[in-house]
Amino acid sequence: MTFVYAFDHEHPKPPMELKDLLGGKGANLAEMTSVLKLPVPPGFTISTDACRAYLADGGWPAGLRDEVDAQVARLEEGMGKRLGDPVDPLLVSVRSGAKFSMPGMMDTVLNLGLNDDSVRGLAAQTNDPRFANDSYRRFIQMYGKIVLDIPAEAFDAVFEEKRKASGADTDADIPAAVLAEVIEAYKAIILRETGKAFPQDPAEQLRGSIEAVFNSWNSPRARAYRRRERIPDDLGTAVNVQTMVFGNRDDRSGTGVGFTRNPATGEAVPYGDFLINAQGEDVVAGIRNTLPLSEMANSFPDIYKELLAIFGRLELHYRDMLDTEFTIDQDKLWMLQTRVGKRTGGAALRLAVAMVNDPTIGLSHEEAVQRVSPEHLDQVLHPQFEKTDAKVLGTGLAASPGAGVGAAYFDADRAADAADAGEKVILVRQETSPEDVHGMAVAEAILTSRGGLVSHAAVVARGWGKPAVCGAESLEIGADSFTTADGTLVREGDMISVDGSTGKVYLGEVPLAEGSVPDEFSTVLEWADTIRAGKLAVRANADTGEDAKRAREFGAEGIGLCRTEHMFLGDRLPVVRRMILADTPEEEEAALAELLEVQRLDFEEVLEAMDGLPVTVRLLDPPLHEFLPSIEELIVLDAKGDLDVPGRALLRAAQRWQEQNPMLGVRGVRLGIIKNGLYKMQVRALLQAAKARKAKGGTPIIEIMIPLIVTYPELDLVRRWVEEEIAAAGVQDEHILIGTMIETPRAAVRGDEIAEAADFFSFGTNDLTQMTFGFSRDDVATILEKYIEEGLLKVDPFETIDQAGVGELVRLGAEGGRSTKPGLKLGVCGEHGGDPTSIGFFYGLGINYVSCSPYRVPIARLSAALAALDAGGPDRTA
Amino acid sequence: MTFVYAFDHEHPKPPMELKDLLGGKGANLAEMTSVLKLPVPPGFTISTDACRAYLADGGWPAGLRDEVDAQVARLEEGMGKRLGDPVDPLLVSVRSGAKFSMPGMMDTVLNLGLNDDSVRGLAAQTNDPRFANDSYRRFIQMYGKIVLDIPAEAFDAVFEEKRKASGADTDADIPAAVLAEVIEAYKAIILRETGKAFPQDPAEQLRGSIEAVFNSWNSPRARAYRRRERIPDDLGTAVNVQTMVFGNRDDRSGTGVGFTRNPATGEAVPYGDFLINAQGEDVVAGIRNTLPLSEMANSFPDIYKELLAIFGRLELHYRDMLDTEFTIDQDKLWMLQTRVGKRTGGAALRLAVAMVNDPTIGLSHEEAVQRVSPEHLDQVLHPQFEKTDAKVLGTGLAASPGAGVGAAYFDADRAADAADAGEKVILVRQETSPEDVHGMAVAEAILTSRGGLVSHAAVVARGWGKPAVCGAESLEIGADSFTTADGTLVREGDMISVDGSTGKVYLGEVPLAEGSVPDEFSTVLEWADTIRAGKLAVRANADTGEDAKRAREFGAEGIGLCRTEHMFLGDRLPVVRRMILADTPEEEEAALAELLEVQRLDFEEVLEAMDGLPVTVRLLDPPLHEFLPSIEELIVLDAKGDLDVPGRALLRAAQRWQEQNPMLGVRGVRLGIIKNGLYKMQVRALLQAAKARKAKGGTPIIEIMIPLIVTYPELDLVRRWVEEEIAAAGVQDEHILIGTMIETPRAAVRGDEIAEAADFFSFGTNDLTQMTFGFSRDDVATILEKYIEEGLLKVDPFETIDQAGVGELVRLGAEGGRSTKPGLKLGVCGEHGGDPTSIGFFYGLGINYVSCSPYRVPIARLSAALAALDAGGPDRTA
Repeated sequence: MTFVYAFDHEHPKPPMELKDLLGGKGANLAEMTSVLKLPVPPGFTISTDACRAYLADGGWPAGLRDEVDAQVARLEEGMGKRLGDPVDPLLVSVRSGAKFSMPGMMDTVLNLGLNDDSVRGLAAQTNDPRFANDSYRRFIQMYGKIVLDIPAEAFDAVFEEKRKASGADTDADIPAAVLAEVIEAYKAIILRETGKAFPQDPAEQLRGSIEAVFNSWNSPRARAYRRRERIPDDLGTAVNVQTMVFGNRDDRSGTGVGFTRNPATGEAVPYGDFLINAQGEDVVAGIRNTLPLSEMANSFPDIYKELLAIFGRLELHYRDMLDTEFTIDQDKLWMLQTRVGKRTGGAALRLAVAMVNDPTIGLSHEEAVQRVSPEHLDQVLHPQFEKTDAKVLGTGLAASPGAGVGAAYFDADRAADAADAGEKVILVRQETSPEDVHGMAVAEAILTSRGGLVSHAAVVARGWGKPAVCGAESLEIGADSFTTADGTLVREGDMISVDGSTGKVYLGEVPLAEGSVPDEFSTVLEWADTIRAGKLAVRANADTGEDAKRAREFGAEGIGLCRTEHMFLGDRLPVVRRMILADTPEEEEAALAELLEVQRLDFEEVLEAMDGLPVTVRLLDPPLHEFLPSIEELIVLDAKGDLDVPGRALLRAAQRWQEQNPMLGVRGVRLGIIKNGLYKMQVRALLQAAKARKAKGGTPIIEIMIPLIVTYPELDLVRRWVEEEIAAAGVQDEHILIGTMIETPRAAVRGDEIAEAADFFSFGTNDLTQMTFGFSRDDVATILEKYIEEGLLKVDPFETIDQAGVGELVRLGAEGGRSTKPGLKLGVCGEHGGDPTSIGFFYGLGINYVSCSPYRVPIARLSAALAALDAGGPDRTA
Repeated sequence: MTFVYAFDHEHPKPPMELKDLLGGKGANLAEMTSVLKLPVPPGFTISTDACRAYLADGGWPAGLRDEVDAQVARLEEGMGKRLGDPVDPLLVSVRSGAKFSMPGMMDTVLNLGLNDDSVRGLAAQTNDPRFANDSYRRFIQMYGKIVLDIPAEAFDAVFEEKRKASGADTDADIPAAVLAEVIEAYKAIILRETGKAFPQDPAEQLRGSIEAVFNSWNSPRARAYRRRERIPDDLGTAVNVQTMVFGNRDDRSGTGVGFTRNPATGEAVPYGDFLINAQGEDVVAGIRNTLPLSEMANSFPDIYKELLAIFGRLELHYRDMLDTEFTIDQDKLWMLQTRVGKRTGGAALRLAVAMVNDPTIGLSHEEAVQRVSPEHLDQVLHPQFEKTDAKVLGTGLAASPGAGVGAAYFDADRAADAADAGEKVILVRQETSPEDVHGMAVAEAILTSRGGLVSHAAVVARGWGKPAVCGAESLEIGADSFTTADGTLVREGDMISVDGSTGKVYLGEVPLAEGSVPDEFSTVLEWADTIRAGKLAVRANADTGEDAKRAREFGAEGIGLCRTEHMFLGDRLPVVRRMILADTPEEEEAALAELLEVQRLDFEEVLEAMDGLPVTVRLLDPPLHEFLPSIEELIVLDAKGDLDVPGRALLRAAQRWQEQNPMLGVRGVRLGIIKNGLYKMQVRALLQAAKARKAKGGTPIIEIMIPLIVTYPELDLVRRWVEEEIAAAGVQDEHILIGTMIETPRAAVRGDEIAEAADFFSFGTNDLTQMTFGFSRDDVATILEKYIEEGLLKVDPFETIDQAGVGELVRLGAEGGRSTKPGLKLGVCGEHGGDPTSIGFFYGLGINYVSCSPYRVPIARLSAALAALDAGGPDRTA
């Protein structure tokens, strides 16, 4: 078995397609080296196979050590240097590189190969003992922390003490001799903490570092990140061992992170951060404030030209916007890494359209659509602030667009606790690190006073579509408050507003405006619509004319779920209660007649907004007690003697309709059958509304949906009622569809039978999930969270459909229904109808349409297109 | 297509096996005629095919009329008489006869063929104008009521008036001339009510009567009866047209109902009721008090001998106890009907054993077991009264054994209402009729003052296993009270006690003793055990040592479900609350340690009672708030300022643990995972109990069951905890089974995966039914009742498993589990484990054991044997 591949290994297929094996970084290093022949420091990649074998067995798989030794030998031979050589030593970096990028999540060791001998060789070679000692002390510190698990503070304290004692202002000012003292002190720390001396043998250093990278795959923060990003735990990471080059050698050296275009806006200009005389980590960590990439035109004009030429070649080769890391080592440019660049939603849309329009790249519409993710759309649909004259506390880099409002928290743990308690929080830090991700995950927005556009905070925030302002230097951020330039003090818990699109930070709560959407948004969605046309339709869940209008604007092709219970609330509540409390059939009918009037008007508005498109109306679903006041409040009033006669009647009614488990109680069609005037009234109101619309020249298309069916006879009975109303209204020739929700496991299992009385099925995956798991959404939030945390569940099944369980029932229901009626129209109207992963799954089951909240419609349109592109297959829309 | 078969038609297989086609009555008439050559009045049967075709099309199927005409012609030819003949007319009866007996549920027309002409012929032939006129008036009345749907009251009023006017005391005293007036008055009623004259054409009379019988299949009372008896609605009825013979011709005539043995006790003596000069209906209707069958030895000695000889032939032929109807027409015996006789549970057991022991009948053990139904066992397990000196109100016939206590109700509607309101009722009537069945169905017992052992009340009560005392003549039963011989007045609502085993009726509530069980009970169950051995085991649900002991006495082969929640109630409640309210882990642990002690003792008792048999312990299942007081009570106290500090703490805890839908909330394994010391404590207590039992020389066999699993990882996690406890206890070599309940739809669908961590599955069909239907048992009782009433559901799915829905999930779970582990042990521990129909279904799925309440164990043992006999197949017990 081969575990190790040199960057210049000739793979039978393009290395950039070998990310499973080489990891993302390794694959791209190999692509740059073996295909593009770019200046990449030589090295080799230890494959993910090796990592998985190591993690499974808890030790090095057979043969790996020999392969590594052979590759090191080849590297030494090629470079003409040897690891640990006291004259001209080879130094290498050891970096993780998983299939999916996990920025900052895993470990890196630099300057490996330095020891008490080779540090002298480095000093001699560079004629810079200070540089050599600094490199060595950095290596020991990193090795101590990462491989030997010694807290960083131990080293930091020594370093700070020595720096102060030497009278140096910055790290760069510390003399070589003092650094030599630091080295000895570091080695003493290692001996003290581990009982063993710092290893002088570079081979041992290398093996330790490789193991540390393997092990970092399972570090808590890496696991947490993968959970958040839904990256499988069993992939493992590759390890890249690469010859070191030094951006921190002198002022003709430097390092930078460059995007071939602007990842925040999509603008076609190179973009990035750059530091002179620094190592790459310094740029990303945000410890030093960086220069813009364009500054290189002044400081390194030739190299800048070379870099831009490389950017061009990369874009043409990858046909995408790239993110690169590079280092200049004494006027020589080295490409250390490239990958397809992460981008904001707006940038994704603009880049997709631009690359279709750019003939040298010439993306197809299909490719362009695939360059945009549902999360990108979600981002551009994010709200922005309204115009405001709120006090500006400061301005930083607009690192991740969108607007966030919340209470300032200065510590990730406290932020997470506050968010758990239901508070909206903004995480405020000088800079963020992987240790802060749990606080970042729950924050509405992130604010830092240090670090640039590719700092940890910025990268993570953009990846998650969270607003972020970074490097707001005018803010003095402390442990539990910050002070602005004008001396305003903002304490923990104070409300602030963060505008990641402008970089401004405001005091207090600035009102949110609707998201601002780039022009390319509709272009891409039109392409998506063409791709999914005839394959998977997108409707909206909308209960009012206003919602329906918005849904239509967002591109909904109809309403898949018009709930009628909202029509029973508000000023109708007294009438609804009269119906419930009615002592005689006459009183009940009178109340129903009143409700009919208002329902008719509601329906007319919805039908007007959706004129010409289908509107699926679900007859009343919730249990009656939802329309009654809380028993607990009433009995407290009663106990205090404060309840009047109507109040006591209400209490009695509430008690009569009270249920132990309302979710499994008398609701849906069961209620319709007990209060059997109700559904007839609703159908009559709907038919009257349709008639009124037609009288006004409209084209109403109605579909009637019966909820909570468990048996064929139930549906058959109610279907007959509906047909009687249709006949009574004289519109029996209009082919009004009568269908049912499939939302109980029984209905799913008996789809074949139930289909006999149904013109369509709409899977109510919320209820189906509740009953399939036995999870009441209201009650199991805590346990769900714990289950996800403990890995007992991979995702919240209410967010993304549980394919193996609930999905299996949907499949059985769909199959059963279609076995009876091959052309049966199938929809999904649970919240999963707006979830991209779930949409892909539904597409695979042959569902005809999904229905989701109006705001999710664009996301569903894109997801449907992506599913269609992914799956191909014939036209399946009824 | 042949629709009509003469009784003497030579069928290719024994007619008694053709009940599907000929109905029960028709099949047995054909058997008696064509095979046994008994004296049966000739006639023919219109098949159930014809009825189904008629009901489906709403009219006579093609060819039926011609076939009927041809059979009538044959009958006329054979008898040498013609329908409607003015000289020597043929008269026929038209009777329903469905596949399953539905006594009194459907319609009968007698004396058909009489008209204004033939009545004279009948008078001349019998030389008895009074008899002829009486027959004619009876026919018109019956035809009016049954075929023309005219209320009986109209006729009754005229008749009563004429009788009084004539000065006659009884019907038999009314002179022929007065009866002639009655006839004219009856014809006038028909003309007035229907606008058409009473049909004089016998062919028209016959067609009308046949249609009426067809239609009576769908009468509300027939439908209600079928629902109660679980007879399918789509069978239809056959119609038997038979030459009339007259038991009411004179004193050398008579009619009776005879059983070949005693159906109440099983005693081997002929048994029945007999009336001289009467029609059969008079015996069954209970209008006249009957003579015992044995009285025939005096009044009709030769015919009695002939009858007993026929009884003997019938028993040898059918190899069972028979129920017959016969008529003597002027000293000639005619057999009108026979069928296998209904019997009480005690009789069924005794008859089964007696017929095995009787070499002339020589039943096999298998046949004997099949002669006993689960309902029979249920009956003998019915409670009896303890010895009492309660006041005896009167004594009647011990018509159906068992004891019932309740409030006296004198009207079926009011009895049904009271029962709906939760009251236990006794239905008290002079006599019952099919109009009373809804009141009989809900009654604890039935009491009548008129009618014999085969009266409507007696037959129905025995069929349903309900206690009944009939013909308690000393009671004067009125519309809303009765008076005893000594003048005691019992009003509606007063409590009485009815002993159907002794015939005594008591004032007030007599305490119940346990059921008295005949010796044959254990004989039959031993045969049943032999039949099911190695096929389907029977365990009990038992939570205490006492329950376990009882279960073992009833033949349980282990415990399939030992719930541990009961161990958390009573005097343990304060400790459980301390655990819930604990502020610190230490307090929680202390409470758990206390609980461990008491649980260990509980477990020891159970293990002792079940020594040597497996005991499946389910870890705690219900949500924690079940152990807290009601929130509503606490907030009322709080509102009144009556809550102390610990009370307020309890209120807060109750609020914290309160759930919207506890059934779908934090319970079962979810609770185990949140309060993760709980399950470990329970396992430890169980292991300690087993150890203590072993120290005492016992042989404890424990199985540990995890409730409410939805995913494999949940079970895997808890399984590891349990294994740790087992290892810590040092008993890891004892192969303690660790399994799970399959009670969520998701677990059923993912059985393959979950089986990887399970040594056994136990289907919790109660919860599975709740979640599959979305029916909370606590909440949907009303709707369930309505659904069954409306035919939306055939049976209560909590009583008999819903095979098509819930059963399908059980099937999927069983299949999935066995696909992973072919030998996986499968059990059922929901209440369906004690339901005979469900047991048959589970047997078909390859379930290894059912577990039910101790009292149901004998029924489950028998049901398992019946399922095995029904299905055959190989040994399947693990």
